[in-house]
Amino acid sequence: MSNHSHTACPGQDNPAAYSSYDSVRAVEWREDRVRLLDQRRLPQHTEYLSCRDAAAVAQAISTMAVRGAPAIGIAAAYGVVLAAQQRYAFSSATWRTDIEADIAALACSRPTAVNLFWALARMQAHLADITGDPGPVLLAEARRIHDEDIAANRRMGELGAALIEAGSGVLTHCNTGSLATGGYGTALGVIRAAWAAGKVNNVYADETRPWLQGARLTAWELVQDGIPVTLIADGAAAWLMRQGEVRWVIVGADRIAANGDTANKIGTYGLALAARHHGLKFMVVAPASTFDTKLRSGADIPIETRTPQEVLTLAGQPVAAAGASAWNPVFDVTPAELIDALVTERGVVLAPDARKIAALMGV
Amino acid sequence: MSNHSHTACPGQDNPAAYSSYDSVRAVEWREDRVRLLDQRRLPQHTEYLSCRDAAAVAQAISTMAVRGAPAIGIAAAYGVVLAAQQRYAFSSATWRTDIEADIAALACSRPTAVNLFWALARMQAHLADITGDPGPVLLAEARRIHDEDIAANRRMGELGAALIEAGSGVLTHCNTGSLATGGYGTALGVIRAAWAAGKVNNVYADETRPWLQGARLTAWELVQDGIPVTLIADGAAAWLMRQGEVRWVIVGADRIAANGDTANKIGTYGLALAARHHGLKFMVVAPASTFDTKLRSGADIPIETRTPQEVLTLAGQPVAAAGASAWNPVFDVTPAELIDALVTERGVVLAPDARKIAALMGV
Repeated sequence: MSNHSHTACPGQDNPAAYSSYDSVRAVEWREDRVRLLDQRRLPQHTEYLSCRDAAAVAQAISTMAVRGAPAIGIAAAYGVVLAAQQRYAFSSATWRTDIEADIAALACSRPTAVNLFWALARMQAHLADITGDPGPVLLAEARRIHDEDIAANRRMGELGAALIEAGSGVLTHCNTGSLATGGYGTALGVIRAAWAAGKVNNVYADETRPWLQGARLTAWELVQDGIPVTLIADGAAAWLMRQGEVRWVIVGADRIAANGDTANKIGTYGLALAARHHGLKFMVVAPASTFDTKLRSGADIPIETRTPQEVLTLAGQPVAAAGASAWNPVFDVTPAELIDALVTERGVVLAPDARKIAALMGV
Repeated sequence: MSNHSHTACPGQDNPAAYSSYDSVRAVEWREDRVRLLDQRRLPQHTEYLSCRDAAAVAQAISTMAVRGAPAIGIAAAYGVVLAAQQRYAFSSATWRTDIEADIAALACSRPTAVNLFWALARMQAHLADITGDPGPVLLAEARRIHDEDIAANRRMGELGAALIEAGSGVLTHCNTGSLATGGYGTALGVIRAAWAAGKVNNVYADETRPWLQGARLTAWELVQDGIPVTLIADGAAAWLMRQGEVRWVIVGADRIAANGDTANKIGTYGLALAARHHGLKFMVVAPASTFDTKLRSGADIPIETRTPQEVLTLAGQPVAAAGASAWNPVFDVTPAELIDALVTERGVVLAPDARKIAALMGV
């Protein structure tokens, strides 16, 4: 059922031709297909996957062609539109039942980022009430999810940038920009806004092994924006902090529990420990869709472990000695007490805890 | 003047044929050449450089064909033998003056590991007293440096292993084994001895970007020893500690100041911070030749910064977006107060400070 078609980049898709985050679309609905920028191939190759069905979208999510908590939520929402169109064309009588398998497949694509389940739930909420062709209603909802994410990112950018003192060095981890979201970005949106406001002296980015999202994706976005970026090996972060070069560590999130404990890309927790040790500020930037207030604490967040091969190889080539094994957790959990500011589109929570988060989320 | 000859691996040099650390020789004096295992090519290729002069040895050190603080000291000592033989053959009258340029070239090959300067000083101490052909005297001294290093490693292995509780998980960083030393290893020697004593449940190794010494070299040595090893991305170390899987973090050193502050591979400092946060023990294993008691503290240790290309590329392939820059410090400094045990061949110093180190070193 999976159905990808690869398209090599035409001239107008050349990375050098992008002038800003407005031009980068990790996820797009185009001509009744879900068009995904294949992020595994960046920055060397700009290729798109054209997904014709939900299984192809699920596969693109599980294989990390599209990644980033908000982006996979948006991709999954569009995947539901594809599924509804196909199931309805096959049987206008049973599509509402038939589509459950597609939604289940999308839900199984990755376990940690809650935005995926949140987006699927929003789409599912419409199913019972639809009369006739479900395509237009569901496409409108998927587009709303997408547009709201961009608007949330813009708002978080403003709110987060307002916290940053002029002349700050900032360090970020993984990729949280246009590629990880509907557009603009969460943590990278804050950095963009703070840079535009003239508050940021230096942007440092962890390369973020094993997938190198920092080196491949964050650097790519910042270079296109004309924002100078300095990459570091992940192991150099604490030493960079010791040099006094960083005032804020700014990261995204894949799931935030009711008490503020935050699952994010592996390596985030160590950054938070080092930031606290050096008296630096630690900011988490994530839309409300990232909160899972059913979970009391981070201990309840399911943490994905991926294949050891991602550590043992690089770009398909073995790097490690044959016979070695690897442990490859994709996320870690940063306890709320290490977070100085939690920035959402609904507002900023300083020193987050369960009470403040409940107030923010209205639960 | 540089003169390397590459030798592809003959059958008996196949990595699979090594049964233990006794068979691995990173540095060897063989048929009036310094034979170096080219560690940039491991573990995929077992190739040797045959250095015919001091410049070739210096180049092998600066390009990291041979690396590891004790190993580069030993290589440099043999490099002095090559230089003396050639200078003496050229002029028995002026060789003692002429060789200074060779020693200077060796001293300039890397800045941070003090074992290099220590070994050169030991060799230089003989120059004034030599009558006739300097080769035999200097070769004997270089061999002594080499043999003493192996003996020191064995002793440190015993002393360090005695500190480790049965049933411990251990985490190490970079490579500190036979490849980094005369043989057996410093931190990895302790792990070998503790494993042999049945005290170690699990050995974890950071992959250690950007050079991946953990994935390429430490895993290679441990696989040959039949010691199971689990690699992790550097960013996963703090999360591993949080799981309760590690009791000791065990690392080597490139230079230790009079107060115990320790320069070691970039990433060590962050590990020490995380270990302290989780109540784990942090052990530094290094021979007396690694101490630089002229330096009051770690602030005085020169820290090498290498080319950004090492972060921006991997195995010669670009990984980062074009236009990004990188900061590539090769070492960091771990303050003495984060070190629980400093293991040398002269004894163990718990909670090291200037007074205890002065007593140990007899200064």
